[in-house]
Amino acid sequence: MVILGAGFGGLSAAKALKNAPCDVVVIDRRNYHLFQPLLYQVATAALSPADIASPIRSILSRQRNARVLMARVTGIDAARRLVELEGGGAEPFDHLVVATGARHAYFGHDQWEAVAPGLKKIDDATDIRRRVLLAFEHAESTTEPEERRALLTFVVVGGGATGVEMAGAIAELAHWALADDFHAIDPTQARIVLVEAGPRLLPAFPPELAEHARQALVKLGVEVQLGHAVEECDSSGVKHRNERIPARTIVWAAGVQASPAAKWLKCEKDRAGRAIVADDLSVPGHPEIFVIGDTAAVNDPNGKPVPGIAPAAKQMGTYVGRLLAARLRAKAKPGPFRYRHDGSLATIGRNAAIADFGWIRLKGRLAWWLWGIAHIYFLIDFRGRLVVALQWLWSYLTYRRGARLITGGESDV
Amino acid sequence: MVILGAGFGGLSAAKALKNAPCDVVVIDRRNYHLFQPLLYQVATAALSPADIASPIRSILSRQRNARVLMARVTGIDAARRLVELEGGGAEPFDHLVVATGARHAYFGHDQWEAVAPGLKKIDDATDIRRRVLLAFEHAESTTEPEERRALLTFVVVGGGATGVEMAGAIAELAHWALADDFHAIDPTQARIVLVEAGPRLLPAFPPELAEHARQALVKLGVEVQLGHAVEECDSSGVKHRNERIPARTIVWAAGVQASPAAKWLKCEKDRAGRAIVADDLSVPGHPEIFVIGDTAAVNDPNGKPVPGIAPAAKQMGTYVGRLLAARLRAKAKPGPFRYRHDGSLATIGRNAAIADFGWIRLKGRLAWWLWGIAHIYFLIDFRGRLVVALQWLWSYLTYRRGARLITGGESDV
Repeated sequence: MVILGAGFGGLSAAKALKNAPCDVVVIDRRNYHLFQPLLYQVATAALSPADIASPIRSILSRQRNARVLMARVTGIDAARRLVELEGGGAEPFDHLVVATGARHAYFGHDQWEAVAPGLKKIDDATDIRRRVLLAFEHAESTTEPEERRALLTFVVVGGGATGVEMAGAIAELAHWALADDFHAIDPTQARIVLVEAGPRLLPAFPPELAEHARQALVKLGVEVQLGHAVEECDSSGVKHRNERIPARTIVWAAGVQASPAAKWLKCEKDRAGRAIVADDLSVPGHPEIFVIGDTAAVNDPNGKPVPGIAPAAKQMGTYVGRLLAARLRAKAKPGPFRYRHDGSLATIGRNAAIADFGWIRLKGRLAWWLWGIAHIYFLIDFRGRLVVALQWLWSYLTYRRGARLITGGESDV
Repeated sequence: MVILGAGFGGLSAAKALKNAPCDVVVIDRRNYHLFQPLLYQVATAALSPADIASPIRSILSRQRNARVLMARVTGIDAARRLVELEGGGAEPFDHLVVATGARHAYFGHDQWEAVAPGLKKIDDATDIRRRVLLAFEHAESTTEPEERRALLTFVVVGGGATGVEMAGAIAELAHWALADDFHAIDPTQARIVLVEAGPRLLPAFPPELAEHARQALVKLGVEVQLGHAVEECDSSGVKHRNERIPARTIVWAAGVQASPAAKWLKCEKDRAGRAIVADDLSVPGHPEIFVIGDTAAVNDPNGKPVPGIAPAAKQMGTYVGRLLAARLRAKAKPGPFRYRHDGSLATIGRNAAIADFGWIRLKGRLAWWLWGIAHIYFLIDFRGRLVVALQWLWSYLTYRRGARLITGGESDV
């Protein structure tokens, strides 16, 4: 039993196989599981990488039938049932669960990545943190007004949850945490622009809540530009139909591209590259291979696509784990996978969030506290929970940010 | 008034000038003050970088006469009273305090740096952390016994405080935190070698305490090799007169080289490159320029060199700050700088440390608790103190390490 990827989906599958009569090999190219929903807080200096990441080996150390392999997957040989690894090695499997996630997509403009990094990995987050903090430092030391203006302009591309959270967090950083720390510049004058191609923010939410989020962003000092597709991104800024925005810092939160699992498996895929799977999440023609999480294209019972969020990946992982456990014990196969949407949460900033549970919709302070409690609850290890709770409490009381470090990206000395 | 460097010395000087009738400009190439004594804990996955670093701007934000400039100094024009900055800028000064610290020295073998990184910066620490953790990962996946042996061998070069602390911390990581997390290897079988050229460890301590430290290291499973100067360092390992140790991970803690301040100032320097200063810490011939901390060569009242430790740098900074404040107010100049040694502390591992206060010497559990309390007390900001205390408590109770992340050093994906 081989599981590729130790994200929410892969780990849930591994855990569901805890008492199954098989060996489970979890392969990931990193040594840690990342709590991705809080990655934007690392990018905006509120949390440290280690606060939201736990070593995979620690998480699975008490599961006796699990083995962890840190390696990069380069392909899958479905016919010979082999996972091909970088360096020439291969791991054989009887059953395979592919949970390799997704990364950001630039819609054919891959050259934009260098100037507009996305936010999927820890190194992305520390890179964005360095760019944002350095922009303020360089603005403080430059003497040219135009350059200073561009340095103090931050453009976030994409109005989904990540874009909304990033824009809100940069605004809070500039307007509160850094407010008193400079002499030549006034960080509260920073311009933060959120550009979205569609007609509204947060398409996963009801229009009324999305509008509340827009107003909350505006109140925080974020300029929200809707209906503007970005036509050009370069080191001087962003251009769309109506405006050319000179900006030194651009954050990409616009598109998602699945990992190349469908290509490896030579199976059908949708436009985002996600493998189109059967109703038991197996690959058509390969009942021994499953694709789950952000890498799989699945519909919910209403025919709508299952969203690329952590709870969905967890449900798929648990489903496949149980299905395989049943198969190994020659028990009855469970019915088809049915996604159960528990609710949607998005945060904008201090005391501002929205929540939609179907039967009830919340906004403002109550939704924000709920968001905080839910995220601390779901943080995977005990230590992470405590440390994050403490840092948030400290930030809440002091309006400060603890992890304001400009690290890496430097040759030496 | 310009201060170069926001380490312990530079910050103490800035703070001592808080009420002086002058502007204080603090220039540092980083945006944070680093609590260097705990850097080895970042390198061994016990703490996160942000736990031991605070933004310089935050530290000085309430000091109204202080301004912070993030820039790299390239030279000092003493005649024209200008600090030259990278990028062509310059900062004029009436008085200058140089507190630019030191970095590790390879005694003419600079090529060793690539294979045997030292520990002075945060990026050094995350680099060493990556090397150490990756060594275990690669040992788990390799199938060649010799390669596995070399991957599980860790050599620390240098038996001063940093070397002792690193060797002890790697031993604890291998023997406790990682003990149950692997299948193919047994991390408790890792070989940790501390190589010191001199006849004993910790020359700053009385022989009896240094011997206790050696025994504590041996008890932790560290091989202590005294009287062996390293003759060769390369990617295959370390060689000295008696042995060639195949090792994939080497940590350099052997030598210190002052920053190039003496070269910039064209003043006399000692063998470690430290500027030889007058008894008021000014540069001979330049009563307006002072050199402090690890960059200055000074003797204590007994004629012994002042050690390169945080309390010494702090004392020099405070002394120079007060001297300048008195000069600006045309008050009497204080007497010559007199170093007061408050005591020496070094930790080896859990419940094992040594302390020498002159009038009393401590070792073992009591010294260790004292070491922990002192370091938490001296951590510069309130948040750092709380978070570090919490993480240590968690590690103490669980024998685990929270910050086991392999980050950076990777091209992409």
